[in-house]
Amino acid sequence: MKKKAVVLANGAFPTHHIPLAELENADLIVCCDGAVNKLDAAGFMADIIVGDLDSVQGHLKEKYTGKMFHSSDQETNDLTKAVNWCINHEIAEVVILGATGLRDDHMIGNVFLLPTYVGHIAVSMLTDHGVFTPIVASEQFNSYVGQQVSLFSSHPDVIITTENLKYPVKNQKFSMLWQGTLNESTSNCFTLNIEGGCLIVFQKY
Amino acid sequence: MKKKAVVLANGAFPTHHIPLAELENADLIVCCDGAVNKLDAAGFMADIIVGDLDSVQGHLKEKYTGKMFHSSDQETNDLTKAVNWCINHEIAEVVILGATGLRDDHMIGNVFLLPTYVGHIAVSMLTDHGVFTPIVASEQFNSYVGQQVSLFSSHPDVIITTENLKYPVKNQKFSMLWQGTLNESTSNCFTLNIEGGCLIVFQKY
Repeated sequence: MKKKAVVLANGAFPTHHIPLAELENADLIVCCDGAVNKLDAAGFMADIIVGDLDSVQGHLKEKYTGKMFHSSDQETNDLTKAVNWCINHEIAEVVILGATGLRDDHMIGNVFLLPTYVGHIAVSMLTDHGVFTPIVASEQFNSYVGQQVSLFSSHPDVIITTENLKYPVKNQKFSMLWQGTLNESTSNCFTLNIEGGCLIVFQKY
Repeated sequence: MKKKAVVLANGAFPTHHIPLAELENADLIVCCDGAVNKLDAAGFMADIIVGDLDSVQGHLKEKYTGKMFHSSDQETNDLTKAVNWCINHEIAEVVILGATGLRDDHMIGNVFLLPTYVGHIAVSMLTDHGVFTPIVASEQFNSYVGQQVSLFSSHPDVIITTENLKYPVKNQKFSMLWQGTLNESTSNCFTLNIEGGCLIVFQKY
């Protein structure tokens, strides 16, 4: 089994060249149920379709015979079903695309599901504007001077210290989610030290 | 001074007829700095432009002479500057448009700023997909059978009880933000009882 997969969720289909390049170069495309119609229309082939399969168009059900994994668990959304499929098939890394851009509540839900995947699989989420990466330990990020960076705690008790960000943070908690937004890299890398939970890092392209 | 205002933020300009109708019927349009170029191009007139005014195009600076409020506070974003202008001018209610649809981190930041406005002014945020409303006490919402509803706590300690939602919640806390998503109204109204903080309610149109 291949070790890196692209997971396509059922938000807006990517238009930016960075997420599109991930699709074009993917070893394995794991497609959420409702997204396969868009994926196929864009000229890509899914390797596996995951979900309750209700919304797959008739001619695609035929085309993808043998490549559909039925999961009707009411407790998880389609994105989590697709990520779980990857975890259960020994994929080491997933890049999530199409998780934003349509319903605002789905977008927020999808971003804040990232902390639940950490520790099970390496994960990032690419949108048309930037990349979300969840971390649970200290980490250094490649960057560039002036890159826009926002930090979202999974829980108000997460303690954060930054290096090479324009508005430095030292052993600080964000009691509200907007408090970590609108920061900026001052170098070709920045470092985040965190304790007590998960931090979701957004880097604008 | 008029008592209800539309605040236009600098995300994607609305395309859905519901937010557009708010613009068309607005008594007062308060426009964030960077959004005035889009607003003007769409054929609307701002009553006041709020921000550091750096990004207002030259010919618009002339057109809006006397209608610009300069605020360069580094601690608040443009949306909060515009809402604060409304609070300081005895506006009773604001409807926020254009706060989503471009940078994902701005969108999350803007949605989770709503709890900071509650108590100062009545506020809702209309996107191309639905409406966000922050509440700090029990409230009944007009709805319809099957309306998609998501609930986001401003803090994990908010205690929530629901009536007339498909997946009922009783004296429950959401320790993670995705846990209140993907609910559904079962009636022409639903009720939310909350304690201990602010709940942001999303209703799909």
